[in-house]
Amino acid sequence: MTGYAQPIKRLIRELGRLPGIGEKTATRLATFIMRASLEDAKQLAESIIEVKEKIRFCSVCFNLTEKDLCDICSDPGRDREAICVVEEPDALIAIEESGSFRGTYHVLHGALAPLDGIGPEQLKVKELMERLGGAVKEIIIATNPNVQGESTALLITRLLKDRDVKVTRIAFGVPLGGDLKYTDKMTLSKSIEFRRTM
Amino acid sequence: MTGYAQPIKRLIRELGRLPGIGEKTATRLATFIMRASLEDAKQLAESIIEVKEKIRFCSVCFNLTEKDLCDICSDPGRDREAICVVEEPDALIAIEESGSFRGTYHVLHGALAPLDGIGPEQLKVKELMERLGGAVKEIIIATNPNVQGESTALLITRLLKDRDVKVTRIAFGVPLGGDLKYTDKMTLSKSIEFRRTM
Repeated sequence: MTGYAQPIKRLIRELGRLPGIGEKTATRLATFIMRASLEDAKQLAESIIEVKEKIRFCSVCFNLTEKDLCDICSDPGRDREAICVVEEPDALIAIEESGSFRGTYHVLHGALAPLDGIGPEQLKVKELMERLGGAVKEIIIATNPNVQGESTALLITRLLKDRDVKVTRIAFGVPLGGDLKYTDKMTLSKSIEFRRTM
Repeated sequence: MTGYAQPIKRLIRELGRLPGIGEKTATRLATFIMRASLEDAKQLAESIIEVKEKIRFCSVCFNLTEKDLCDICSDPGRDREAICVVEEPDALIAIEESGSFRGTYHVLHGALAPLDGIGPEQLKVKELMERLGGAVKEIIIATNPNVQGESTALLITRLLKDRDVKVTRIAFGVPLGGDLKYTDKMTLSKSIEFRRTM
């Protein structure tokens, strides 16, 4: 990007700091922004600032919200007996969109990754423990089906061992609409291991 | 993205308007921006506004610049006898980085695409014609080697037919470092068609 004027270089550098955006994509996006109307560019810039200024964590479940309590935590219709534990807000959104859960959530904001310096203190684990007692009867661990998600699930299971709460894990298996011959070995082996009686 | 708070939805929508950024990528970028420091988010937002406010087109060649004349057009060391015509500023940058050209440029800001409503009036073609006369002896057409680039090259060649200027086109052929067995048929056929005597 040597030949570009200073403000363009700066924009390319800033865009290149976003995840998954390399120099080529950043240059393409910068070119687009330069061609867009000043109005459109301002809309984009403002929406970036607005999201930082208005969005915070729900004080109960750490979902993203504009208020102190998120829409789910403040909904009297939600079942407070079950808490579904997820790594990220996008997982919460995905489960909400499936329409299969009417309880509340707890967002950990990450998963254990000791090599990246992410231990239990970096996650909202302590805050989950503080929510126990009272109505809570079941903790459904919906961390991702990978090494980090599994170790996080084990950590939470261990911490809840002596507490009066049922701990469950979402099911692993062959995804619907998939084809067995294209399913990876690990998933197939899980789908056999967790087979259920018809 | 139904479940997200309003400012997040807005940011996802704004990011999703960028080229090649779908809803999933926009959501990932929005999540990153929400986690970044307010300082970093402000840097990004400011660089978007800055580029729109400071960058304009060179009044001669339509390259992007902060000044009235771009660095190349205002450099007395550049050869004014040859003008290299490109579609976009990134092509200009690429040729500059190759270090193989010491003349000046003309950026068309696009290529002919009648189906998308892009005719000669949408390109800086008239402005190229106005630069002729005086020192200019050669127009090197460096539009892209595809249908749009080729029809643009033909248009310019036709417009320059009766003008006292040599019109050339960059060479097409097998790229260096490539392997003939992986080179597409069109390129191979061009490399035979444009073969030169050793």
